[in-house]
Amino acid sequence: MAKKNEKEFVTEITRREDDISQWYTDVILKTDLVDYAPVRGCMVIKPYGYGIWELMQKEMDSRFKATGHENVYMPMFIPESLLLKEAEHVEGFAPEVAWVTAGGSEELPERLAIRPTSETMFCAMYSKWVQSWRDLPMLYNQWCSVVRWEKSTRPFLRTSEFLWQEGHTIHATPEEAEEETIRMLNVYRDFSEKVLAIPVFVGQKSEKEKFAGARATYSMEAMMQDGKALQAGTSHNFGDNFSKAFDIQFLDKDGTRKYVSETSWGTSTRMIGGVIMVHGDDRGLVLPPKIAPVQVVILPIAQHKEGVLDACHALKQKLLAKGFRAHVDDRDTQSAGWKFNEWEMKGVPLRVEIGPRDLEKGEAMLMRRDTMEKFSLRLEGLEEEVEGILQGIHDGLYQKALAFREGHVTLASTMEELNAGVQNGLVKAMWCGDRACEDAVKQESSATTRNMPFDQEAAKAGLGEVCVHCGRPAKTVIYFAKAY
Amino acid sequence: MAKKNEKEFVTEITRREDDISQWYTDVILKTDLVDYAPVRGCMVIKPYGYGIWELMQKEMDSRFKATGHENVYMPMFIPESLLLKEAEHVEGFAPEVAWVTAGGSEELPERLAIRPTSETMFCAMYSKWVQSWRDLPMLYNQWCSVVRWEKSTRPFLRTSEFLWQEGHTIHATPEEAEEETIRMLNVYRDFSEKVLAIPVFVGQKSEKEKFAGARATYSMEAMMQDGKALQAGTSHNFGDNFSKAFDIQFLDKDGTRKYVSETSWGTSTRMIGGVIMVHGDDRGLVLPPKIAPVQVVILPIAQHKEGVLDACHALKQKLLAKGFRAHVDDRDTQSAGWKFNEWEMKGVPLRVEIGPRDLEKGEAMLMRRDTMEKFSLRLEGLEEEVEGILQGIHDGLYQKALAFREGHVTLASTMEELNAGVQNGLVKAMWCGDRACEDAVKQESSATTRNMPFDQEAAKAGLGEVCVHCGRPAKTVIYFAKAY
Repeated sequence: MAKKNEKEFVTEITRREDDISQWYTDVILKTDLVDYAPVRGCMVIKPYGYGIWELMQKEMDSRFKATGHENVYMPMFIPESLLLKEAEHVEGFAPEVAWVTAGGSEELPERLAIRPTSETMFCAMYSKWVQSWRDLPMLYNQWCSVVRWEKSTRPFLRTSEFLWQEGHTIHATPEEAEEETIRMLNVYRDFSEKVLAIPVFVGQKSEKEKFAGARATYSMEAMMQDGKALQAGTSHNFGDNFSKAFDIQFLDKDGTRKYVSETSWGTSTRMIGGVIMVHGDDRGLVLPPKIAPVQVVILPIAQHKEGVLDACHALKQKLLAKGFRAHVDDRDTQSAGWKFNEWEMKGVPLRVEIGPRDLEKGEAMLMRRDTMEKFSLRLEGLEEEVEGILQGIHDGLYQKALAFREGHVTLASTMEELNAGVQNGLVKAMWCGDRACEDAVKQESSATTRNMPFDQEAAKAGLGEVCVHCGRPAKTVIYFAKAY
Repeated sequence: MAKKNEKEFVTEITRREDDISQWYTDVILKTDLVDYAPVRGCMVIKPYGYGIWELMQKEMDSRFKATGHENVYMPMFIPESLLLKEAEHVEGFAPEVAWVTAGGSEELPERLAIRPTSETMFCAMYSKWVQSWRDLPMLYNQWCSVVRWEKSTRPFLRTSEFLWQEGHTIHATPEEAEEETIRMLNVYRDFSEKVLAIPVFVGQKSEKEKFAGARATYSMEAMMQDGKALQAGTSHNFGDNFSKAFDIQFLDKDGTRKYVSETSWGTSTRMIGGVIMVHGDDRGLVLPPKIAPVQVVILPIAQHKEGVLDACHALKQKLLAKGFRAHVDDRDTQSAGWKFNEWEMKGVPLRVEIGPRDLEKGEAMLMRRDTMEKFSLRLEGLEEEVEGILQGIHDGLYQKALAFREGHVTLASTMEELNAGVQNGLVKAMWCGDRACEDAVKQESSATTRNMPFDQEAAKAGLGEVCVHCGRPAKTVIYFAKAY
């Protein structure tokens, strides 16, 4: 019976090697993370998906607060005149703005953009709020949804509306702004590694790929199992670009009026797509323990037998008391085999089976979802082992993703090498810094520049001195990849 | 110096008896709860205001989860055709809908409403998700912002965009839906009393005042200091009204297909307005301890003197370790007197002053914001007393609000009594149940019906048997009031 169900389940999800795109769609729908909404390009985030997002939020929010940031809420509407104030910014975002033109039966005197991002609104408020150096820095963040009218969408990875956080800060000096930009990039990296178990490349974006209106954009880039890159978080230094457009000045200690320096940084539900694409396997989701809505699922075997359900619930209570998210699946409408497969598909990090024979021996059978490895443990005191097992799963996932990435980064000195490399991974190459070469590489290979590593000397190892495309002297090491 | 600052501060806020509307505006702006946004009818929620909302969310969310609900996220866009599916609903909401008509430079083929509430979107999804009785109930909630294009707005109390939660549930039987509706009303009441320290009247809305598309709406109504009512939360039983319009059927145990029964319930940032209007005084905010972003503010006196700042920070650490939200105001740019007044204005429940003389005695001076009562305590072990003091403040606020309300509810047997009573409070009266009388009362007195108490027998005490307006036999006891 278990065998039959197992088969049924496994064949329900397309295998990655057959069609990774269909595999992704199968996984997100069959594990109840999301559903398609009756609105073009939008998704409904179901309880299991939203539970992951809540855990991500909690982890990030505590990091933001620990670095001195406070949450605020800005209106979702941005008057067109406000959006138009910074030229590069509006050029970048206008093509994908959703416009409100009527309230009730009245035509509005001015169109309202639904925020694609909130730099302009924060700037409008900062220009009211800041007077003197004593008011600085202002370190704000908001959790909200934003809208970008996308042509081609995929749940989590690219949708017309998505949930995110956007930090917006103003500072007295350019140096402080740069420090903040890098600080938050590192917060993101820490979060990605320690919570999502995803290794990332951090570095600076090219002029072409930077945020509309930024002086410099830094990103973290993760590698998916199909070798494509996912930009999983960005941090921008605006310098005084916006503060000049919005006239945000302060009276400095030296008695002169100066423009503030500004940053913004954001991450979104897109990271959930990254988690699926980095850790998932042919059985479905594999969730890192820190963001798993259920960390330990307890499955009773022959649950009608005396003592089985009691033992399951007793263990659950002990786990809850220690702060773990535990669940007993005591449905009597499904077989044990069905449940095994369902919870594997849902990516629960640790499974505990308890049946009559286990109880006789005072043991339970456990299974790690990441390795599918089974092992038994004494039931007495089992709850003391869970922390270590979950940390082991986290570390295992991280190391596996790191090893995969290391196996899928190639060095390219020629366009042939670059073209070959981006078929299934990231390519590290030298670049002259010219937009023309960047465009030509994209034209020839469909790969875009991802970012430029901070430690250029270390990154150069194994590379020459000339641009991979034009052969002129190179200015920088940069990663190329096809990207989501 | 302290005296002078005190005076300056107090005169900055309009006194309630002079102009309570201006007092409200002064308080919300000067305590940095909100600011006006550069968009008509919208507000910016600043860190101090958002901190209150975060604490409210946490308290409510844990109650929702404890009663079996899960969070989801639905798109903010509702296609016009979807909004039109339930006739009463669209009639109620269409006049205040903001419409998106363009994405980028393209005209949309169908207008999209920005959700004024999400019944229609939940219904569209429920009709996909429910198959059999095994899938029921579905108990979902979402935290988001909604938009209602209001003509006349006030921060928190009525804005074009506001933050809220909306619960949406479907059930197998009408009885279960009714149970859920009442359960969540009671969750709201519990939250209002135990967290906000606000007593509420709970009961059923009249046909006229019920939610557009509901079979029955229940509300909790709080009394503001100006005698007006604030509808602080509502819970709706839709019966099969929406499930018929959206064809949400399930296969029941008996093998027949049935329509689900549905509920929804919501509360919003409006409750912050209620907290201000119920507990505030001429010095500013008075925050209930459970939602105060700072519960204990520690003020060093003569902070340059040896040991003062150390003692303040040591106490703060002890308070943080016990889970309290404590803050040391060690700014050297403001006098102690200025700080006293600022934190009083911000409504921090408990103040602790520590100066050189206090240290010599091993004591600290405390002040309760609700009563402005001062008392000293041994510094050693002070942190052990805080829980009890904060609970005392909560209880004191609740009792004071309850006493105020009891002094401002009058019984009316005639329209003269009703007219007089609604000038500064709620009026309890008998009503025939006819819309004509309800409209006439509003016309004559500006008062609307608030709700009908559940225990009609008890509520009738002191009232006659005939309608306060028409004199015909009455059907129900009902509260009338001017309302926000």
